[in-house]
Amino acid sequence: MKEITIIGAGLTGLLLSILLGRQGYSVQIYERNKDPQHSFGKRGKSINLTLCKRGINALEKAGLGEEIQKLWVPVYGRCLHLNDSPLEIQPYGNYHEALYSISRQELNALLLSVAQKTPGVSIVFGLKCVGYDLSRSTIFLINEHQYRTELPFTTLIAADGIHSAIRSQMQRNFGFNYSQFYSKHVNKELTIPTENAKEYKLKQSYIHIWPRNYFMIIAFPNRDGSFTCTLQLPADDNSISFRTLNSESEMLYHFRKLFPDAISLMPKLVEEFFQNPEIPMMTVRCSPWYIEDKILLIGDAAHGIWPSYGQGANASFEDCEVLNNCMEQHPDNILASFIEFQEKRKTNVNTIADLSENHFNEIRHLVVDPNFLLRKKLERKMNLLFPSEYFSLYSRIAFTTIPYKQAVKLESFYSGVIDELLKYQKIILDPDSNASEKLIYKTYKKHLTNNKDIT
Amino acid sequence: MKEITIIGAGLTGLLLSILLGRQGYSVQIYERNKDPQHSFGKRGKSINLTLCKRGINALEKAGLGEEIQKLWVPVYGRCLHLNDSPLEIQPYGNYHEALYSISRQELNALLLSVAQKTPGVSIVFGLKCVGYDLSRSTIFLINEHQYRTELPFTTLIAADGIHSAIRSQMQRNFGFNYSQFYSKHVNKELTIPTENAKEYKLKQSYIHIWPRNYFMIIAFPNRDGSFTCTLQLPADDNSISFRTLNSESEMLYHFRKLFPDAISLMPKLVEEFFQNPEIPMMTVRCSPWYIEDKILLIGDAAHGIWPSYGQGANASFEDCEVLNNCMEQHPDNILASFIEFQEKRKTNVNTIADLSENHFNEIRHLVVDPNFLLRKKLERKMNLLFPSEYFSLYSRIAFTTIPYKQAVKLESFYSGVIDELLKYQKIILDPDSNASEKLIYKTYKKHLTNNKDIT
Repeated sequence: MKEITIIGAGLTGLLLSILLGRQGYSVQIYERNKDPQHSFGKRGKSINLTLCKRGINALEKAGLGEEIQKLWVPVYGRCLHLNDSPLEIQPYGNYHEALYSISRQELNALLLSVAQKTPGVSIVFGLKCVGYDLSRSTIFLINEHQYRTELPFTTLIAADGIHSAIRSQMQRNFGFNYSQFYSKHVNKELTIPTENAKEYKLKQSYIHIWPRNYFMIIAFPNRDGSFTCTLQLPADDNSISFRTLNSESEMLYHFRKLFPDAISLMPKLVEEFFQNPEIPMMTVRCSPWYIEDKILLIGDAAHGIWPSYGQGANASFEDCEVLNNCMEQHPDNILASFIEFQEKRKTNVNTIADLSENHFNEIRHLVVDPNFLLRKKLERKMNLLFPSEYFSLYSRIAFTTIPYKQAVKLESFYSGVIDELLKYQKIILDPDSNASEKLIYKTYKKHLTNNKDIT
Repeated sequence: MKEITIIGAGLTGLLLSILLGRQGYSVQIYERNKDPQHSFGKRGKSINLTLCKRGINALEKAGLGEEIQKLWVPVYGRCLHLNDSPLEIQPYGNYHEALYSISRQELNALLLSVAQKTPGVSIVFGLKCVGYDLSRSTIFLINEHQYRTELPFTTLIAADGIHSAIRSQMQRNFGFNYSQFYSKHVNKELTIPTENAKEYKLKQSYIHIWPRNYFMIIAFPNRDGSFTCTLQLPADDNSISFRTLNSESEMLYHFRKLFPDAISLMPKLVEEFFQNPEIPMMTVRCSPWYIEDKILLIGDAAHGIWPSYGQGANASFEDCEVLNNCMEQHPDNILASFIEFQEKRKTNVNTIADLSENHFNEIRHLVVDPNFLLRKKLERKMNLLFPSEYFSLYSRIAFTTIPYKQAVKLESFYSGVIDELLKYQKIILDPDSNASEKLIYKTYKKHLTNNKDIT
């Protein structure tokens, strides 16, 4: 039986193990955390997760289609909380398109239980991989007592996350191109308990956002009615930042000014603010992802992306599906499947890395920009008029499985239509009028004729 | 007395120690190599070095102006060796502008002897720095027997080169942005002995180039009449590369086809080809270069650049001069001098990193491109007509001390003039005719009037 060693029993490693196990591989996973209860029970270590079609598709391939539905909460749009304004709902689409808010811990636990039941898959906990020796095909592992052991592998797949030890070692090799890029903002987990959410009638079917330019809170619904929030502040800035908000009074003073309505929702604000860790956002790009037919990077180990587009886990799940297909197509040639995998994924994950950096700024600033809102409105209108043809970039990323790169390539065409329409006063004043609708039809068809190669 | 610890007694660490020693600092250097005779005697480990005005200026500040002149060989242009064509000389400028070819070993030895004589400077060999502990202000060092020791520092400056261990550790810090980018080509040192160079009348006052698109040899003159050459081939390509030229017959077969005239110049070709190491080219960018007032990166540790523009050592020497000035201006505020140093250098070294990557392609392909040659000719013509005003980009980089970034910024203006001139048939046919000269005057003056802010 063909043997695969996977480093890391996180979301990526586990899903991959299930897919490869079902394909007949013998899969051995090593996970640094000792006790799954412990490792998956930790809160506050990473911001919430929303599944979209890309991730769900991959989970369905692993036979998890039904079980994940029990864990998630669908969200149909953004609910903006602006100071001194009524709540504003921005639906994601016209047809009840949804993202699916899910607890990372619960999803991880589900994947773990399925992996453990999958024939051929075996998991060892409490062993942290710290490096490899390619010439002897061995990996080095240490346990909690720092005891070092060495184990052989045939083919190694590193799903050991954004701080991958395997990638770290590969970085020393000639020809390994690498970059890491941090945002100046960092995240901190805060919570809105069920009773507070209910008291303030916080609707569960939306992601709630308190956008304040350089500062933001985003709240994701949980099944029990509570919300898990992410507070985004600059890490180290002379004005308001995690560094300067260093006392309870200083923190509360600025919170009351910035997020007056959010404070009453968070009874444990002070405790969580000062106890929960700051979670940085880092883009990682590297190449090549493989060494011969021996080692492959996958998921965050190959391509860390900022969580702002909600695509981190989804992109990694897509990785698993694509690699699984490549290995199916080249059953006797691992190297060919690695080459094809990188070929298929590299430009796409580069694209979503760029989009995530850009979207981070968009979501903070532009959700309250009238021009941005008009554009969004017009995009929804276009999608209403041309339901199977016109999607916004956000929709193509979040609600389709069009490869990321192609989704962005299409954008120059679709945004060109919107640019042209926004030149007309009647569109700006009332996109729903009959005259506007006629103009939209005419403009769209003209663009289609001029760009026949786009479809 | 204020104390500075420097890691690395390479070109950068030594020049900096001399400058800071002269400023009254107590400087302690730790160098991994044990014996200077040994470490500087190694050949074949890095490609030859040419000093230009930037580097020379910094060396003069350290009082080395006279002594370096005894070590170098001035080169006034490129001599191209094309197959089936006569030699072609491309002077660097109209006014005997020169680069100064110098042995890295000899320059290092000179800097070492001067540093050792500089009051306040002390050097310990045979201790390799492998990391630091910021909270305790200590560095970890190991000797040749892998014995580990820990020593305190007040302010640490890492001049430990492109594979800097200090930078490696900083890379794990939140907010440390980093990238490394390799060329697909690697270099190998070859030599043309004095007698062969004489026999074939290889002129000492030029850098000799054998450009063959994807493959190239560059020969730098030494004082004894010999030449130190760099062979550039792809590292790992299915056609001709260091990987595929893996036997003597295969290597000689392709060498005879590509560089027939070079073979007879290199009696030790086979031996050197198979014994000398392959030297990769890597661009390193990172930020921030400092941690508080405790640690600073400088030289290749802060910004590795490809050697193609001949600016690696020159940029590092400029670093030393700028840092020395910053520390002079902020005698009681190390942090302020680090901040100002990065502010002054970061965008400039980013620029030369870009230029070096681009120039690598230019020098390989374009030195034999008629359009490129016409441009170069016109640039020299412009410089003849406007000697104190008009310089090519190459001249601004190599023969002035205009900051790199400004040198490039000026290029859009100067290349605009050339672009416009190249639209005229009479310029293309004969830039030296009276009619052409009139047109050049008119065009240049018009551009000057339209771009008054450039000067």
